[in-house]
Amino acid sequence: MSSTERTEKTTEKTPVTVIGLGNMGSALAATLLEHGHPTTVWNRSAAKAEPFADRGAVVAATPGEAVAASSLIIACVLDYDALYEVMDAAGPLAGKALVNLTSGAPEQADEAAARARSLGLGYLDGAIMTTPPGVGNPEMMFLYSGSADVFEAHRPALAALGDPLYLGAEPGHASLYDVALLGLMWSAFTGWLHGTAVVAGDATKAADFTAVAVRWLTHAVAGFLVTYASQVDAGRYPGDDATVDVQIAAIGHLIHAAADRGVDTALPELLKATMERASAAGHGSDSYASVIEVLRKASQNGAAM
Amino acid sequence: MSSTERTEKTTEKTPVTVIGLGNMGSALAATLLEHGHPTTVWNRSAAKAEPFADRGAVVAATPGEAVAASSLIIACVLDYDALYEVMDAAGPLAGKALVNLTSGAPEQADEAAARARSLGLGYLDGAIMTTPPGVGNPEMMFLYSGSADVFEAHRPALAALGDPLYLGAEPGHASLYDVALLGLMWSAFTGWLHGTAVVAGDATKAADFTAVAVRWLTHAVAGFLVTYASQVDAGRYPGDDATVDVQIAAIGHLIHAAADRGVDTALPELLKATMERASAAGHGSDSYASVIEVLRKASQNGAAM
Ligand SMILES: NC(=O)c1ccc[n+]([C@@H]2O[C@H](COP(=O)([O-])OP(=O)(O)OC[C@H]3O[C@@H](n4cnc5c(N)ncnc54)[C@H](OP(=O)(O)O)[C@@H]3O)[C@@H](O)[C@H]2O)c1
Ligand SMILES: NC(=O)c1ccc[n+]([C@@H]2O[C@H](COP(=O)([O-])OP(=O)(O)OC[C@H]3O[C@@H](n4cnc5c(N)ncnc54)[C@H](OP(=O)(O)O)[C@@H]3O)[C@@H](O)[C@H]2O)c1
Repeated sequence: MSSTERTEKTTEKTPVTVIGLGNMGSALAATLLEHGHPTTVWNRSAAKAEPFADRGAVVAATPGEAVAASSLIIACVLDYDALYEVMDAAGPLAGKALVNLTSGAPEQADEAAARARSLGLGYLDGAIMTTPPGVGNPEMMFLYSGSADVFEAHRPALAALGDPLYLGAEPGHASLYDVALLGLMWSAFTGWLHGTAVVAGDATKAADFTAVAVRWLTHAVAGFLVTYASQVDAGRYPGDDATVDVQIAAIGHLIHAAADRGVDTALPELLKATMERASAAGHGSDSYASVIEVLRKASQNGAAM
Repeated sequence: MSSTERTEKTTEKTPVTVIGLGNMGSALAATLLEHGHPTTVWNRSAAKAEPFADRGAVVAATPGEAVAASSLIIACVLDYDALYEVMDAAGPLAGKALVNLTSGAPEQADEAAARARSLGLGYLDGAIMTTPPGVGNPEMMFLYSGSADVFEAHRPALAALGDPLYLGAEPGHASLYDVALLGLMWSAFTGWLHGTAVVAGDATKAADFTAVAVRWLTHAVAGFLVTYASQVDAGRYPGDDATVDVQIAAIGHLIHAAADRGVDTALPELLKATMERASAAGHGSDSYASVIEVLRKASQNGAAM
């Protein structure tokens, strides 16, 4: 083998088939093409696939043709029903690897993994922690769980899409992280919108408040999460700097300021009630991290009320 | 004047009096001493003041002695009642500058500013966006509002404590930002604790989930806030990548996963109901930023229900 041939060999990119060319699937296929992966695409409505021919992709006419073209198949369709329709139409899948980036519940990932197993198909489930414009940005996280073999074998292709993090063999784990992280996102979004509405009552622009809010979130708040995470793992919540009871006093000012400005108070009222449950359970002098005790014992608390 | 004398002159630090040596006041006084400010301290219980004598501070015996020592007075006591007790006991305050870092509601800051005005005392209100260990860290924000003269004259001393941000002449503005930012913090904390409880149901450590959550919050979520802030200011919420209706579908998975694992669902249920109000108000195809429309029209929405 000449040295030129060897260089070509080591830079050779895995052929990939992308199933589903909606907003997200199109971003995945475009990014793989940019990284030089021989890419085959298929979409239910052929119109979305056509532009990919000009960009160097092979446009498959059927799911069967699509899966036959590559040993790595990345699927990103609307939901699991859509995924199963395509899999059923695809013909033999044994020996191939399916990376499923369709969103769903953890149990749906478990079920898909069981189906794949019965077909002799390697199965890696994934959750995309960004929107289509973020695909290809190495700062954005793609969470994976399921087959470690598929993850290791196809890490270079997965790394083209974003930063691939493997969370373990349990197929539903990436989906569970996904919903838990989205919950954090919706909470942060709503808390920020609420604050934006409160300061807007005193004629502050959202952009001005947000510049401060982003610094607060990324420096101060994120730092507390790290401190509090070790407290949660240790099951001890020293309230050195800021206790639950002090926060209960302070949130009263927010509820008052919101009400005065005609802003909805349901979110801070719920947060206050949650803190009060923690205080009533004996965590008044503990840190905010102790609030997890009343969140995770939902049934016991319900019974005690 | 010799060049040595001139150097000494330019590096001369403003004398500062610190009133209140609780957890926070002690951190403020210690930081000012570290930065070489001639510092006078006073605390109601003398015991907390004693250690500061060894560190080079003048320990005042009375509030009157304390305020006489410096033209810049920084107060950080429990609440406004405590502040007024000290001010009443202090004697003449005309011509001096008071920087009040005691937490409270915006109206309390307005009232304190009015009192200060009647005493001929310059008044700057402040909110400390960190805990005592963060004092002196230039990444941590100290928000100020009220007298621009006091802020400009004493910026160097204030900069020793943290990054000083001036929010305008309205005395209550720093307090309003404070409660709005704390609301974001409690929302993010609770959303994160909820997610931590959900993944703990599948035996994930808080520290492992939090490493991913912090990346998610600081990169992806913070980036969305900036995009959404301009949408809020423009009053238009294009849902290009992620619409309210798509989020409503996704939050169902979180509620289900939480319930399955015995985790309280009140927070995601409230977030879902809020999104559904936005969708019902015609924002189903808009971005999440449109949720502000139903938060800030609390009274109208209440009436419509
Ligand atoms: N967009 C995001 O920001 C984002 C972020 C993270 C995760 N995701 C997840 O990625 C997946 C795709 O999202 P998207 O934004 O690309 O959605 P989308 O733009 O609505 O695209 C949906 C895709 O699914 C296909 N599809 C629907 N039903 C089908 C069926 N029965 N058989 C075969 N194909 C079917 C559609 O094909 P047609 O073109 O023929 O309709 C289309 O390719 C979803 O699970 C979503 O939750 C999206
Ligand atoms: N700790 C934080 O993380 C933090 C963060 C931001 C803002 N803050 C705000 O900073 C302020 C002080 O907090 P802290 O943590 O220092 O509280 P703290 O440790 O409880 O100290 C309270 C201080 O107030 C004094 N005080 C109480 N009642 C008084 C009265 N009637 N007359 C005179 N002095 C009185 C106390 O004096 P004695 O020693 O005699 O009791 C003590 O110096 C509060 O408004 C708090 O909200 C605190």
